Amino acid sequence: MKPSATVAFPSRVVIREVGLRDGLQSIATIMPTEAKKQWIKEAFEAGIREIEVGSFVPAKLIPQLADTGEVLTYAKTFPGLFASVLVPNLKGAERAIDNGADLLLVPLSASRAHSLANVRRTPDEAVSEVARIRAARDAARSKTIIEGGVSTAFGCTIQGYVDPEEVLRLVHALLDAGADRVSLADTVGYADPRMVRELFERALRIAGDRFCCGHFHDTRGMAIANVYAAMEVGIARFDASTEDLAYMLASMGIKTGIDLERLLELRGHVAGWLEGEATHGNVWRAGLPKTMQRASTRAE
Amino acid sequence: MKPSATVAFPSRVVIREVGLRDGLQSIATIMPTEAKKQWIKEAFEAGIREIEVGSFVPAKLIPQLADTGEVLTYAKTFPGLFASVLVPNLKGAERAIDNGADLLLVPLSASRAHSLANVRRTPDEAVSEVARIRAARDAARSKTIIEGGVSTAFGCTIQGYVDPEEVLRLVHALLDAGADRVSLADTVGYADPRMVRELFERALRIAGDRFCCGHFHDTRGMAIANVYAAMEVGIARFDASTEDLAYMLASMGIKTGIDLERLLELRGHVAGWLEGEATHGNVWRAGLPKTMQRASTRAE
Repeated sequence: MKPSATVAFPSRVVIREVGLRDGLQSIATIMPTEAKKQWIKEAFEAGIREIEVGSFVPAKLIPQLADTGEVLTYAKTFPGLFASVLVPNLKGAERAIDNGADLLLVPLSASRAHSLANVRRTPDEAVSEVARIRAARDAARSKTIIEGGVSTAFGCTIQGYVDPEEVLRLVHALLDAGADRVSLADTVGYADPRMVRELFERALRIAGDRFCCGHFHDTRGMAIANVYAAMEVGIARFDASTEDLAYMLASMGIKTGIDLERLLELRGHVAGWLEGEATHGNVWRAGLPKTMQRASTRAE
Repeated sequence: MKPSATVAFPSRVVIREVGLRDGLQSIATIMPTEAKKQWIKEAFEAGIREIEVGSFVPAKLIPQLADTGEVLTYAKTFPGLFASVLVPNLKGAERAIDNGADLLLVPLSASRAHSLANVRRTPDEAVSEVARIRAARDAARSKTIIEGGVSTAFGCTIQGYVDPEEVLRLVHALLDAGADRVSLADTVGYADPRMVRELFERALRIAGDRFCCGHFHDTRGMAIANVYAAMEVGIARFDASTEDLAYMLASMGIKTGIDLERLLELRGHVAGWLEGEATHGNVWRAGLPKTMQRASTRAE
């Protein structure tokens, strides 16, 4: 069966900027807190309204993110900016709650081997931690939203194959444990758009609107196609840290609220702060097409 | 309407290697004829069965492709290898026919401004040239297939916007003029997957099976997603010169006949022959995923 050309893409998509956490945590250069604040300010000015500002992990594990508390407090000064943090466990979650994060993301690896190597817990032990986090959140009468993020959802560099059935079982388990939302992440860039379409559609059947976000790494150049495939089945929020995604959405006439020119300016600044580090993406090199204005008109 | 997860992607896709023409014509380094022959040999050994080997243009315009005749003759020594050339006009077409090319591709720019700047002809004058080429081919009782390729089909750096109606009019006109096949090219990397889906579906309604190929430039990182969108409406041949596309197809379980390991070896050699030139793509840097074997099993 060939679908019609009138596929109903989401009319609006949210890009959650994750460069401050996922981008920075994998590079050596320590970015000064002031630069992070500037990044948040310029992202806000460019129209971004959801930012993952850091991670509440022990500072000795990821020195890059040791200033997450201060960065989060700063982010909360922008009206309408939804600030999230990653937390690996209850202790981190308590800090997120205390600091008033709008959302805390608890990652949980669907690869047992990856989970054990990374956080020395099985996936089911991580689910139990989410239940404890939910209890702590409710006890504190906090409004912080809890997102359970299933990582290595398309495979893993340690274990290799990850069974989609296991991913879906964990989606179920996370919701049962009290996660408000769930998301799926291709942590190592193994997904292709067919896998995404198939897995995301099944996850949507389980979680409905509580399946809130897709997170794709562009390790093998598939991330943009994977987002496209996810949108086709109705997902409308994506983690990102290059402008290529914002560009595709604008070109497709999908509203994001983002000003691409300002986003590209910000990218230039980030590249400056990270001088010497490789940065990713294509649009910043090629520039916006001459047709872009017409394309964005199409979005109205 | 959301399409079902059971979209019928093509079970088999042909990748036409165009690096020897489209890749080389845009770089300064002149590749020796012997290297081009080695490229063809290794591509054939990797399972590629369609190659655009060069272009019959005046040598002084593109010195890089001055040896196209010799390269074509060499390509024809491989049994089952379908060798095509690009020709800008009747004179080039006559050389292609004389040299026994399996296919000659006549590009025709849908952007009037681009067409005038590039070949000093209006699009309709280019259509007339295709009619003359068809007459010459038939008079020579040649089996060379004539493909009319509509370039700048999604916009152009000179004119900006290109009206899809004009693209479709030219598809019609090319078929009327005697082209055996037509194809559409995003010459400047302006397409997004929604545009591709919409335009390709309309072109298929006009040309049916004679709409044979999609050609996407990855200038803004959209090429892989554009191929995916084109496959969703039923296109099953693509021009390419990076391994990322072959990787996506293999991962999706779509047969191409290509041995990815050998293709990556070839890429290493091409990069060596072009030392100092920037080359594109992600998979060669990241390597194949640990899951690839399982993914290719899925293709059976």
